[in-house]
Amino acid sequence: MADFDPASIKALTFDVFGTVVDWRSSITREGQDFGKAHGFNNVDWVNFADRWRGMYQPAMDEVRSGRRPWVKLDVLHRESLDKLAAEFGFKGVSEAELEHLNRAWHRLDPWPDAVPGLTRLRKKYILATLSNGNVAIMVNMARRAGLPWDTILGAEVTRHYKPQPECYLGTADMLGLKPEECALVAAHNGDLGAASKVGFKTIFVPRPAEHGTGQAKDIKPEREWSVIARDFVDLANQLGC
Amino acid sequence: MADFDPASIKALTFDVFGTVVDWRSSITREGQDFGKAHGFNNVDWVNFADRWRGMYQPAMDEVRSGRRPWVKLDVLHRESLDKLAAEFGFKGVSEAELEHLNRAWHRLDPWPDAVPGLTRLRKKYILATLSNGNVAIMVNMARRAGLPWDTILGAEVTRHYKPQPECYLGTADMLGLKPEECALVAAHNGDLGAASKVGFKTIFVPRPAEHGTGQAKDIKPEREWSVIARDFVDLANQLGC
Repeated sequence: MADFDPASIKALTFDVFGTVVDWRSSITREGQDFGKAHGFNNVDWVNFADRWRGMYQPAMDEVRSGRRPWVKLDVLHRESLDKLAAEFGFKGVSEAELEHLNRAWHRLDPWPDAVPGLTRLRKKYILATLSNGNVAIMVNMARRAGLPWDTILGAEVTRHYKPQPECYLGTADMLGLKPEECALVAAHNGDLGAASKVGFKTIFVPRPAEHGTGQAKDIKPEREWSVIARDFVDLANQLGC
Repeated sequence: MADFDPASIKALTFDVFGTVVDWRSSITREGQDFGKAHGFNNVDWVNFADRWRGMYQPAMDEVRSGRRPWVKLDVLHRESLDKLAAEFGFKGVSEAELEHLNRAWHRLDPWPDAVPGLTRLRKKYILATLSNGNVAIMVNMARRAGLPWDTILGAEVTRHYKPQPECYLGTADMLGLKPEECALVAAHNGDLGAASKVGFKTIFVPRPAEHGTGQAKDIKPEREWSVIARDFVDLANQLGC
């Protein structure tokens, strides 16, 4: 935090999947529940979670490239799920049950430090999501997990998926702030790099278990980000909240 | 509440200026503070508040009609203020001071029942703003007043000012809900009429002092809205929250 002044920023904006919530354990848990209910006993649900998440970036690329008009993440998740359902042989599942499983992304659990850390950070800073998840995902997740956002911003309201610059810039603009008055908090160096390019301050919080024990990427900060914190409680300490 | 089932809706969306907050008293108070600081002693600040608010609909009409591309309410407020500043003879006022006065709209006080009522309503319903005010106005107002919104929606994120149908429909869509799963809470019959036309449920809460003692409009419900409540606490009672 060499040359970073915590008073220079007014809002903390957050990447959510991986940074605030543990999508992998949560989707695995939801898959297991789904499997039990339908008697799908031979599925590796951790692999299912990884496969589903693996279809995330390619699906958004269709929109980022302009090959496909704007469509929200709930729809992309569902299209990926339909492919996986065929591949994994989910038979005899109703439309309502598949849609419930698709909304597993609305029911992700926060990392243990997320709620206590955010609650302290909110006293001093505006807290907004800056996620590729659409508004309903973020609202339903926040109500279930107790995440104290001031508002939901990011991809759906700017109609651009990260790392497109419009997503970060549009979020700052809606907060009525200059980019340099906003910090992005993320567990992903690439996200921070894109935010930094358009003037955001950058806060790296590693989540070395996001992808399980063998995680190779994003274990460490790859650049001198504005702040590096162990978790959200450490971040609250460092920012004097 | 004859044929209205409180379990049929999932979100309450709120008009804000007049319905949740008392803009007239708040702008008058901010004007008085501004007047004292600069020695403008002969201004009728209630009249100033009414004049400023009176320029609100015509300014939005320029955008609604398409004569002007999308621009947020902070900008329209500022243009109106610049005209009033010339007319009222505000001289020797710095840009920063005028901008502070413009942001009086970020510092409006809630009606006394708003926070206790919303706090109860939130336990059962998603609460979102559906205001013509832009995101920064709503976020800053909520943090100051303690309004417990789940998220800020409405004009800026849909890029349409009420009563255009896109504003209501876009808000429901972002919540992942059908229009009939949303209710608009408003003190204005016209707003409820527009929401009703696109399928929203409608909740009328009269604010007979919004325009002061001589208020002629919106004293009473003009149609059989889904629910009519005295205030937000009465609404929480009626909805079983």
